[in-house]
Amino acid sequence: MSRLEHWENRKVMLERVKKLRENLCANSCDGFFSLNAAANQYLTGFRGSTSAVIVTRKEEFFFCDSRYTEQARAEVVGFPVEEISGDICVRVAERLQSVGCQVAAYEPESLTVGALRTLEKNYLGRLRDIPGVLSNLRQVKDENEIAAIDGALRVAESVLVDVLKGLAPGVTEREVAAKIDYEMKLRGAEAPSFDTIVLFGKRTSLPHGKPGDARLSEGDVVLLDFGCKWRGYCSDLTRTTVFGSMHPDWFGHVYQTVLNAQLAALAAAKAGMTCRELDAVARTIISEAGFGQYFGHGLGHGLGIEIHEAPRLNPQSEVVLEPGMVLTVEPGIYIPGQGGVRIEDVIVVTSVGCRVMTRASKELTR
Amino acid sequence: MSRLEHWENRKVMLERVKKLRENLCANSCDGFFSLNAAANQYLTGFRGSTSAVIVTRKEEFFFCDSRYTEQARAEVVGFPVEEISGDICVRVAERLQSVGCQVAAYEPESLTVGALRTLEKNYLGRLRDIPGVLSNLRQVKDENEIAAIDGALRVAESVLVDVLKGLAPGVTEREVAAKIDYEMKLRGAEAPSFDTIVLFGKRTSLPHGKPGDARLSEGDVVLLDFGCKWRGYCSDLTRTTVFGSMHPDWFGHVYQTVLNAQLAALAAAKAGMTCRELDAVARTIISEAGFGQYFGHGLGHGLGIEIHEAPRLNPQSEVVLEPGMVLTVEPGIYIPGQGGVRIEDVIVVTSVGCRVMTRASKELTR
Repeated sequence: MSRLEHWENRKVMLERVKKLRENLCANSCDGFFSLNAAANQYLTGFRGSTSAVIVTRKEEFFFCDSRYTEQARAEVVGFPVEEISGDICVRVAERLQSVGCQVAAYEPESLTVGALRTLEKNYLGRLRDIPGVLSNLRQVKDENEIAAIDGALRVAESVLVDVLKGLAPGVTEREVAAKIDYEMKLRGAEAPSFDTIVLFGKRTSLPHGKPGDARLSEGDVVLLDFGCKWRGYCSDLTRTTVFGSMHPDWFGHVYQTVLNAQLAALAAAKAGMTCRELDAVARTIISEAGFGQYFGHGLGHGLGIEIHEAPRLNPQSEVVLEPGMVLTVEPGIYIPGQGGVRIEDVIVVTSVGCRVMTRASKELTR
Repeated sequence: MSRLEHWENRKVMLERVKKLRENLCANSCDGFFSLNAAANQYLTGFRGSTSAVIVTRKEEFFFCDSRYTEQARAEVVGFPVEEISGDICVRVAERLQSVGCQVAAYEPESLTVGALRTLEKNYLGRLRDIPGVLSNLRQVKDENEIAAIDGALRVAESVLVDVLKGLAPGVTEREVAAKIDYEMKLRGAEAPSFDTIVLFGKRTSLPHGKPGDARLSEGDVVLLDFGCKWRGYCSDLTRTTVFGSMHPDWFGHVYQTVLNAQLAALAAAKAGMTCRELDAVARTIISEAGFGQYFGHGLGHGLGIEIHEAPRLNPQSEVVLEPGMVLTVEPGIYIPGQGGVRIEDVIVVTSVGCRVMTRASKELTR
C-alpha cells in the first residue's frame, strides 16, 4: 500500500467507526464488539478468519492470535493490533470489563450462542443484541467498495467469455467448474466467492446444484453461476445458454420469460422503492407467464465483503432501497426433470434508478 | 448410490440418530434441532448449505427450501424431506410446538443468537443449549468416515507430488495455489477444504498467510498447506521444503526440530491420554530447542465433515483421546522476518497408539 492509499483507507475506516459510534449512542450503548470476520474486515481492513474488534465511545481495540499477528500488522488500519492467547471470547469480556464498558452491543446474526455464554460468564456489564447495528451500515457501499466489486466482476466476466469459448462435447460439469476457479485465481482473484455452479441439461433445474460428472452434449442447456473475491469484495454472475445450435423445445420461451423479468427489474430498480416491490416486478412477469411455481427463491441479495449481505430482495422484505446499495438481480425458472434458466446481474442503486455493474452479454451465443 | 450402499448408509444414519436420542434422554430433553450444515450432513447425508433437522424421541424431520429440494431427495437418508418457505427458524419453532416437544436441545456453538431469538419468539417450550450434544458424537469417526478422509488425503497427496515436481523459478504463490485447487478438483475433490496456503521464502513465517505475488527463487523455503473435501469429508496436509539445492542457514536445524517434535507426537498418540498431554510431547521438544516462543498455535485439531472439529490439541484441553478420533498433528516454528516450518499429518487414534493416515514423504526432496 502506498502512503496515500494508506491515508485514504484510514479516512474511510475512521468514517465507518464514527458511524458505528453514532448507532451506539442512538441505542444507549457505550461499546460494541465483534468476532465476525466480515464485520472486522469492514471496520479494520483485516482479512484473516479469526479476530476480535472492540469499539467503545473513545477507544478501539483489535485482537488476534499469533497465527495472524504479522498479517494483521500489515492489513489493519486505525486500530492498534494486540496479540492474544487463549479463548478470544474471554479476552473480549476482560477488556470490556477493564475499560469500564457498561452496555456492550453486538450483532445477533453474527455471534453464536456459545460465544455469548462465554462472554456472559466473564463480563459483569450488560450485553445487548442490536440487529443490524453494523450490517445496516454495510448495506450502503462507498466508492472504494463499489470499485472493488466492479473489479471482482471484471475478473468473473473475462473468465466467462473464455470458458464459454472453450466448451467441448464430453467435458464434465466438474472440469468446467475447476477451470473457472483456476482462471479466476490466475487473473487476480483471492478465491471463488462461493462454490462455483456448473450444470448441464436437465440438471439445470437444481437452483443450487453441485457440479458432478455429467458430460456435455450437443443441445444441452448450460447454467454457470460463479464469482470471486477481489481485494476483499465479492462478485456474482449467472448466465444460462445452450451448447450447440439445437435448443430443447421449452427453452426459448422460458429463457425469454426470465430475461423479460430480469430486464424489467433492472429498469424498475431505484432508491425509495422497497425490496418487496422490486421482487414483485420480476415475479409478476414470471407468474403471468404461468411459471410462478417454478421461481422459488428471492429475486436477489446484497453483496460486498460477503456473498450474501443485507438487504434481501424477496416477497417479504420492507427494506427501502438506498443509493449505494449493491444487489444481485437473478430471477429463475426451474422445471423439475426438464431444466432451468437463471440470469443474474449486479446493480448499484442510484437516486434515479440503478447502474448495472455487470457487462457480460445475455445474447445466446458462446 | 447402489441399493446396498443406500441400505448401509441408512444403518449408519439410524445409529447416529439413536446415539443422539440417548444424549437427549441423558439430558432430560425430548427434542433436538439444528440449522448447521455440518451437523445436518452428519445426521442425514444432505450436503447443501441451508437446511433444518429436528429429532424428537419418536420422529425425525428435515426441512429445506425449494432451491435444495431435488438435491435433498437424492441425498437425504432416513428423514422425510419437507420443502418449506419463509423463515426457516420460524418453521422449526412451529414444528417443535406442534409435535408437543417440551424441552428442545441445541448446540450453542452452531446456532446464532439471532436464530435463537426467532425461535424464542415462536416456540413456547424450553430451549436448552447443550455444548457438544452432537459434536461429541462426531469426534469419533466410523469406518465410512475414515475411508472418506483417507480418500481425501490420497487426492491431496497425489497433487502434492505433482505440484512439487512442477515448481519452477519465477512462479508466484498465487499461481501454485490456483494449480493445487484445480488439480484437486480434476482428481475428484468437491472443493478445497480451506483456503490453500502457499508461501515462499520469508513469508513462510506467516502461519496462516495468504498466497500473494511473491515469485519463487532458488533457495527459497516453500510451505504448502492444503486439503480437499471428498465425499463430504476433509483432508489437511502441510509440507515444508526448499526449492533448489541451497538451504538458508537456519533451515536445517529448525526443520529437524519440527520433524522431531512431530514424529515424537505421532509415536506418543494413543487412546487414554489427554489432548493437553499430546500437545506437550511436541511442545516440549520445540521449547527445549529454544524455539518455544515461535510455536504459537495448538498442535492440531479434529477434522471430518468440517476442517476444524472437536477435539483440539492444545495446552489447555483435558479431552481424553478415544479410538476413532481423527486429528491433525502439525507443529511449527515461525521466526518473524526469517521464515517458518510446519509439518502436518492426519492420524486416527487406536487403542494401542495411532495409525498415521498421511502417506506423503517428509524427505526434503522435490
